[in-house]
Amino acid sequence: MSDYDVIIIGGGPGGYLAAERLAHAGKKVLLAEKTALGGTCLNAGCIPTKTLLNSAKLYIHSRDGAKFGVSADNVRYDWKAMQDWKTQIVNKLCGAIAATEKMLGVEVVNAEARLIGPGKVEIGEKIYETEHIIIATGSSPVMPPIPGCRGNPQVVDSTGLLSVGEVPKRLCVIGGGVIGVEFASLFSALGATVEVVEMLDEIVPVMDREVAPILRRSMKSVVFNLGCKVEKIEGGTVFYSKKDGSAAKVEADLVLMAVGRRPNLEGCGVREAGVECSPRGIVIDDGMRTNLPNVWAVGDVTGRSLLAHTAYRTAEIAVANILSGCIAGGKGDAMLWDAVPWAVYSIPEAAGIGLTQQEAERRDIKVATSSVPMRVSGRFVAENGFAAPGSVKLVADAGTGRILGVHIVGAYASEMIWGVSAVIEKGLTAADLRQLVFPHPTVSEAIREAAWAMKI
Amino acid sequence: MSDYDVIIIGGGPGGYLAAERLAHAGKKVLLAEKTALGGTCLNAGCIPTKTLLNSAKLYIHSRDGAKFGVSADNVRYDWKAMQDWKTQIVNKLCGAIAATEKMLGVEVVNAEARLIGPGKVEIGEKIYETEHIIIATGSSPVMPPIPGCRGNPQVVDSTGLLSVGEVPKRLCVIGGGVIGVEFASLFSALGATVEVVEMLDEIVPVMDREVAPILRRSMKSVVFNLGCKVEKIEGGTVFYSKKDGSAAKVEADLVLMAVGRRPNLEGCGVREAGVECSPRGIVIDDGMRTNLPNVWAVGDVTGRSLLAHTAYRTAEIAVANILSGCIAGGKGDAMLWDAVPWAVYSIPEAAGIGLTQQEAERRDIKVATSSVPMRVSGRFVAENGFAAPGSVKLVADAGTGRILGVHIVGAYASEMIWGVSAVIEKGLTAADLRQLVFPHPTVSEAIREAAWAMKI
Repeated sequence: MSDYDVIIIGGGPGGYLAAERLAHAGKKVLLAEKTALGGTCLNAGCIPTKTLLNSAKLYIHSRDGAKFGVSADNVRYDWKAMQDWKTQIVNKLCGAIAATEKMLGVEVVNAEARLIGPGKVEIGEKIYETEHIIIATGSSPVMPPIPGCRGNPQVVDSTGLLSVGEVPKRLCVIGGGVIGVEFASLFSALGATVEVVEMLDEIVPVMDREVAPILRRSMKSVVFNLGCKVEKIEGGTVFYSKKDGSAAKVEADLVLMAVGRRPNLEGCGVREAGVECSPRGIVIDDGMRTNLPNVWAVGDVTGRSLLAHTAYRTAEIAVANILSGCIAGGKGDAMLWDAVPWAVYSIPEAAGIGLTQQEAERRDIKVATSSVPMRVSGRFVAENGFAAPGSVKLVADAGTGRILGVHIVGAYASEMIWGVSAVIEKGLTAADLRQLVFPHPTVSEAIREAAWAMKI
Repeated sequence: MSDYDVIIIGGGPGGYLAAERLAHAGKKVLLAEKTALGGTCLNAGCIPTKTLLNSAKLYIHSRDGAKFGVSADNVRYDWKAMQDWKTQIVNKLCGAIAATEKMLGVEVVNAEARLIGPGKVEIGEKIYETEHIIIATGSSPVMPPIPGCRGNPQVVDSTGLLSVGEVPKRLCVIGGGVIGVEFASLFSALGATVEVVEMLDEIVPVMDREVAPILRRSMKSVVFNLGCKVEKIEGGTVFYSKKDGSAAKVEADLVLMAVGRRPNLEGCGVREAGVECSPRGIVIDDGMRTNLPNVWAVGDVTGRSLLAHTAYRTAEIAVANILSGCIAGGKGDAMLWDAVPWAVYSIPEAAGIGLTQQEAERRDIKVATSSVPMRVSGRFVAENGFAAPGSVKLVADAGTGRILGVHIVGAYASEMIWGVSAVIEKGLTAADLRQLVFPHPTVSEAIREAAWAMKI
């Protein structure tokens, strides 16, 4: 008889949620985490960044309230106090996860675990037998082989920047993806001079190309250098070449390297055990099955969508298939990759879900689109003024009218986007969306206005 | 031949939106508004209150930011500046409506219009002929026949309180519905001593009885006197009797009468023309038809759901039925009254949609419910702390699992609730809700957690 029903390697959002769901269903579960429960999301990702960004928003709002009739003198932030609040939140949330696992009877070990093969996991000196294994080892920031990058104390990754002792005067962010944009927004709000160097022609690749520039231009105090390739770094100076081949540089005190993340495949034994991996991570089917029987992979390590909520959902799908016995490919629950929302907690926020117009066209889908400025929303105008940037874009299938994607820049974007998950998962059309009742006055009404602006 | 295809009486949200949709479809439309375009919502309701409440939130945030690392000295509000911003927003939004009507070719007249009978409307000296008539005259605050209420300069309705010259030191709010609670929240945030006197045993009747107390208790600085009947008012002193018959009073500088609104049936000729009215308003079927042929009624004047977005939606339904020729009862588009969201823009916010557990039980529906505290959301905790009040409650049909209602207290409630419109209109179940991907970290995830906490 096996020691466990399921051994889970990695205690981030994918791992700890899988453990909870399995234990709740009566399974005997071992959860092995080598550093801290909660993974990147809780310890060095979502939660710390959003906590600091909330403080930055409060600072901006306190400073710029006069228009709305609210004033104050000597508005200031205390980076140390911001960090203390962040640490307090992270510690309490970590504690809450540990308490939940314990309450549900999940055995948690603070140790590195190694997949030996189907049904076999090594922890410390001992090999445990188990029916199922879930690999949830997550991902790590990439430190690319750019000269002057590795070993340079002025070059940090996102984890390093989160715990920096003071706000840098000048920050250079390499990479204009979600992480780069959030940090650029945070530190520019706190008064740093921020320049972003991005290889692509636009920021935030998941975002529709019509909407991304609105987010970019709304971050007025950040300089974006697009289509630029970093050649080398010397101290805090980033040397890059422009598209036309000319050379340029950014002089900064600190450099954030935010060019991407790679799956954590080392140390956990997956390659050695014969788990099929591609350059982006462990290869899975839509039911989270690897090529080895009863070995599953969820979250960032699959490289499919490096988001905590994707980790949650993929964990649930693996669990559902384990519980229902759908262990062969092509059966059971499956991930809908096109119904995964994303959010950028910049100032202003952005969020989206589903296809961009560009991606739809790449797939040869004939689309109808509509865009409305956020000023169609009375609440948006009341809280931001008529000139504030913001937009909602809808992408629909031109034939059926089905909503394929929604992309938003503006306050509350992150909190209103989940509704589009329902819209896309259930195949609602633009006409359906027009008939939903949105509460007035909300910013979410802009989604409805965009549906009415659509010509299908 | 008629002078117009459609004459609309009343230029609030129901009237102006109906005019836009009809004109967009090529109809010849006359929109008669006797005071100001935008109606109560824009001139004395939703928009002004939310604009002032936003300023109040900024003030609270500026004052209480130290925990989050943000401090300021001498944090203050300027009521006059708050009013100026409000007026500026209202004026611009009114202007935007006028511009839209003009652009679409709607003829707008600033005059009282009277229904004479089917196809006949009197404006000034002239009687116009029209195919259809839409009554959208809205509602007005009720000033009940309580001794000392009418003619007392210290007793105001919501319109009066919005334009008061200074923040009262002591405010007594009579009525604990949405309007009463929002004003109580606004003025208590601005430092007034606020007491609410409410006849019912709980505030906000549309809200589930399990969740409403959470909102009430979260407004710590407001005193709520529940189950109390106002007997008379003398100056600013409100005398009331408690449930046990004992007498008590609230001494205030200003009294807000917020006990409800009544339909505007006078002056517009509906009673004289034979339109059937109940005590709450014009009687309509679910397609917005009155008892008279081609005479429609939308919005507050029907008394069915006194919300701007209900006015929008009922206007669209009337328009859809006019355009498709569904002028007989029982055909065409119909209103789903149980899929109308509501929001309270208090500090904290609350929002909901669909049935409360109590209403479901009144209808003999066997329900399953679940409630989770807002601290299940990492973002909520990061932005409010672990001790902050907040909750999400789901009500589902115990047999089918279909979601019937969702009731929320907590930040962003108003912006996340629209998604439940999709969930309810499309008949999604708790199981469906569990499978949606919610972005992490958001407060909206609490809805998902509540779905997972549900035992069906």
